[in-house]
Amino acid sequence: MEIESLDRLINEFSKLPGVGKKTAQRYAYFLLTQSEEEVKNFATSMIDAKQKIHFCKICANFTDKEICDVCARPNKAPIICVVKEPKDVLAIEKVREFNGSYHVLHGVINPLENKGPNDINIRSLLTRVKDEKIEEVIVATNPDVEGEATAMYIANLLKPLGVKVSRIAQGISMGSELEYTDAVTLSKALSSRREI
Amino acid sequence: MEIESLDRLINEFSKLPGVGKKTAQRYAYFLLTQSEEEVKNFATSMIDAKQKIHFCKICANFTDKEICDVCARPNKAPIICVVKEPKDVLAIEKVREFNGSYHVLHGVINPLENKGPNDINIRSLLTRVKDEKIEEVIVATNPDVEGEATAMYIANLLKPLGVKVSRIAQGISMGSELEYTDAVTLSKALSSRREI
Repeated sequence: MEIESLDRLINEFSKLPGVGKKTAQRYAYFLLTQSEEEVKNFATSMIDAKQKIHFCKICANFTDKEICDVCARPNKAPIICVVKEPKDVLAIEKVREFNGSYHVLHGVINPLENKGPNDINIRSLLTRVKDEKIEEVIVATNPDVEGEATAMYIANLLKPLGVKVSRIAQGISMGSELEYTDAVTLSKALSSRREI
Repeated sequence: MEIESLDRLINEFSKLPGVGKKTAQRYAYFLLTQSEEEVKNFATSMIDAKQKIHFCKICANFTDKEICDVCARPNKAPIICVVKEPKDVLAIEKVREFNGSYHVLHGVINPLENKGPNDINIRSLLTRVKDEKIEEVIVATNPDVEGEATAMYIANLLKPLGVKVSRIAQGISMGSELEYTDAVTLSKALSSRREI
């Protein structure tokens, strides 16, 4: 029951994040039940997106223009929010509370994966802070070892410029139960407590 | 933050079974991090599979030949296993205990969806039973209402031909999907099939 073109399609689907053999199979079989036109539309939308979308010249987020919509916004606050990936921008934009601009690192410093500061988009951040007269840089990398290390590196790099560098708060998440919060988070929440 | 080509790609991904907006977004963003060549390979494999794969002239399973590998097998047992979908063939083939051939219905009788016996691949089953001197037809549709109704319909249709019609045993739990049944249960269900 070997169908080469089907196996190849299943293999392609299984490259997607979090997709195993079984799910890939399901996707592939589903696609075969669609009309040829629908499959072509899907395939075209892939190539189309890949060809049209590139990195914003300023913040390195995805855009189909030269400068992304966020960077092109007028009256932005002189604040840059540094994130690991483009989807993190999406998450913060959803909150509708931040009116500065972003800076996408496209990775974090990770010695285990041989990723140093020069392998991620850090250098242009320095230029931006100077050129755009930035007053604060919020480092919003993930609260894991690599994210913390990257935040520390950026802080040390930017401090000499006299810019304020902050880190998004870490603590127990809203709506969660203290009882089920892990020890590391709880410890962090206790140590970074603030007066009310 | 509207990127039209990205939205279109996310929309295409969200058409896949079990994929919501969030997962579709994840897949789309992942694709954008791949090289243009990789994305093109993915897109090509879709169109390629869709164009090359069609239904086997005999059993209506997916194949890239005129007659599928199972139907082309020599010394098959004179038994036909009737299933709802191509992926069900895959599930039964994995057990490696069935050496007859298959018949894919591409659906089941479902009055709620206006699907009658003429909307699924039942008619050619009659011809096959006569022409291939079939001794037994095992109905392996899912153990849900529609699957049971379809099994009864097939049994009534074939009985006059003097062929034995059996149903895979209800060792598989009601309401579950054949595709996700483990091999042991499926094997048990096959061997303890009962005449209907």
